[in-house]
Amino acid sequence: MKAVQSFIGEPVAIVGAGLVGAGWAIAFARAGLTTRVYDANPSLSEKVLPWAAKQLSALHAHGLLGEPPQVVANRLVCVNSLKEAVDGVAYVQESVLERLDVKRQLMEDLDAIADADVIIGSSSSGIPASAFANDLEISPRALIAHPVNPPHLVPVVELVPSTQTSADTVEFVDRLMVSIGQSVVHVRKEVEGFVLNRLQAALLREAWALQRDGVASCEDIDKTVRDGLGWRWSFMGPFETIDLNAPGGIADYASRLGALYYSIARSRVDDGPWNAELIAQVEKDRRQHLCADDLAARRDWRDEKLMEFAARKSSISGQSVSEPGSCTGA
Amino acid sequence: MKAVQSFIGEPVAIVGAGLVGAGWAIAFARAGLTTRVYDANPSLSEKVLPWAAKQLSALHAHGLLGEPPQVVANRLVCVNSLKEAVDGVAYVQESVLERLDVKRQLMEDLDAIADADVIIGSSSSGIPASAFANDLEISPRALIAHPVNPPHLVPVVELVPSTQTSADTVEFVDRLMVSIGQSVVHVRKEVEGFVLNRLQAALLREAWALQRDGVASCEDIDKTVRDGLGWRWSFMGPFETIDLNAPGGIADYASRLGALYYSIARSRVDDGPWNAELIAQVEKDRRQHLCADDLAARRDWRDEKLMEFAARKSSISGQSVSEPGSCTGA
Repeated sequence: MKAVQSFIGEPVAIVGAGLVGAGWAIAFARAGLTTRVYDANPSLSEKVLPWAAKQLSALHAHGLLGEPPQVVANRLVCVNSLKEAVDGVAYVQESVLERLDVKRQLMEDLDAIADADVIIGSSSSGIPASAFANDLEISPRALIAHPVNPPHLVPVVELVPSTQTSADTVEFVDRLMVSIGQSVVHVRKEVEGFVLNRLQAALLREAWALQRDGVASCEDIDKTVRDGLGWRWSFMGPFETIDLNAPGGIADYASRLGALYYSIARSRVDDGPWNAELIAQVEKDRRQHLCADDLAARRDWRDEKLMEFAARKSSISGQSVSEPGSCTGA
Repeated sequence: MKAVQSFIGEPVAIVGAGLVGAGWAIAFARAGLTTRVYDANPSLSEKVLPWAAKQLSALHAHGLLGEPPQVVANRLVCVNSLKEAVDGVAYVQESVLERLDVKRQLMEDLDAIADADVIIGSSSSGIPASAFANDLEISPRALIAHPVNPPHLVPVVELVPSTQTSADTVEFVDRLMVSIGQSVVHVRKEVEGFVLNRLQAALLREAWALQRDGVASCEDIDKTVRDGLGWRWSFMGPFETIDLNAPGGIADYASRLGALYYSIARSRVDDGPWNAELIAQVEKDRRQHLCADDLAARRDWRDEKLMEFAARKSSISGQSVSEPGSCTGA
């Protein structure tokens, strides 16, 4: 296993060149790494370079690139075979189809052809690594590295080891991800949905139930988050938010509001699946605020907003805003 | 009932001058309304003017006041009796103690002394208006107007009518709140926790369970939100987020991920209360990132960040970023 320090300038491989893989390619290239891109479907990998050129221009316009876009683009190399992609690389980020058989086949292929010390991170958002990466030579060197889409715009990445991943591998990918500017979350057990999608699932379940029961519209629920809860969560997270929301901190908060929150939770005990009728109702509600024909344009708007957000975060982190520190005492 | 148009420049009353009431006072005064502040405890109302002066200076420094702080401060008037506070006002925002008997007593007092057309908004975060504002002369003119704390920094406000609130009252408070720059959410049924705290409760329940089960630390869960989910939620909300996260929009998203999310929800069916042991465990975890002694300073940091956030939102809303439009077709 190579040290991260010797890593910058060395090649990494992106296997699977859909939106997630292409976003990863930018994240690595932007940090100075030569990035080989491969997809079994050549029509996908052909799209990566033109797409990346547009994204890099936009990042540059928002002050999010330290170099000219072309310098970063020059680090992206599309290749025509898996062998060519992984030959001599220290790290492979796989973002192939979210299907057990497809991921397992790739692991077996990598097991056969990759160097003996290569590390493999999987973008899997749901399937745990133990389900497709175990009982191979490479098993100790494979884990989940699950990003938010798109990974070059939103920094969080969940690292989830399999039952056979080594501690060295987790540490290596942690350092690598931090070195390219991602924000690493360690998920210690292979729970369904990992952490990010479990949190999202919990909030969405309540949101859908409120819409279904006629308590509030999609738009009003969105407002509650984007003009309320989301402001604090975008720089504090839920624990710090409540820690600051009672005079005595989080334990004080729990003793004041724990009973209410438990009562709310019990009111949603097995609330049923989202059935076809409810899906149709929610879609109709959403379409009053965004036409289906405008979805693509609105995604461009979202990416633009994420860049503004990232630019603001990076300018603020250069200022003297105090960051949380650990207790020296207790 | 007075028209909102004739309202600016007229007095409003703030009853209850803790942090929520004091924040409301700034929100109204900033929008040009003369704002009378009353608390049954004079030591609380005495603190409002010096506190407001500091807040107004900070708002001004962030470009969030269109006038000198002193001009806004001059609209704040501390008064010594409820009668003096509400005499001739069109609107009363009550933010007294969150206790049924206290709120009921205030409603009865207002019923006895306020003008016949006064409208009353309650900052209650949990007790529904039907529990304390019904069967009085003023009942049709009272509703919940629940803010996020502090209301002058975070714009969302939930309007929740009681079973006896008139539609005119809801409309009046909607217009008033929009005119002072708040973001109005209509909650159509008096559900426990309304919308905002139900959404927060759902996310917190999952977050606490993940910490309890050793899946992730408080800090890593906070990171997942503040470096991931919170970025999108801070300008889109949860429904728009998923509407843009599948090629065919929200129904497509639900058909792809509905089963996973339902499975996650079922894994948390009646998960138990936060008991003393869990509260101690979570507090210990949080204290590794923030000492109890630093809570107060960190709250100042939070308010500073919220002002930066508000300043950025207000500068962006002046740009040509397209806002969501409703379908002209479907």
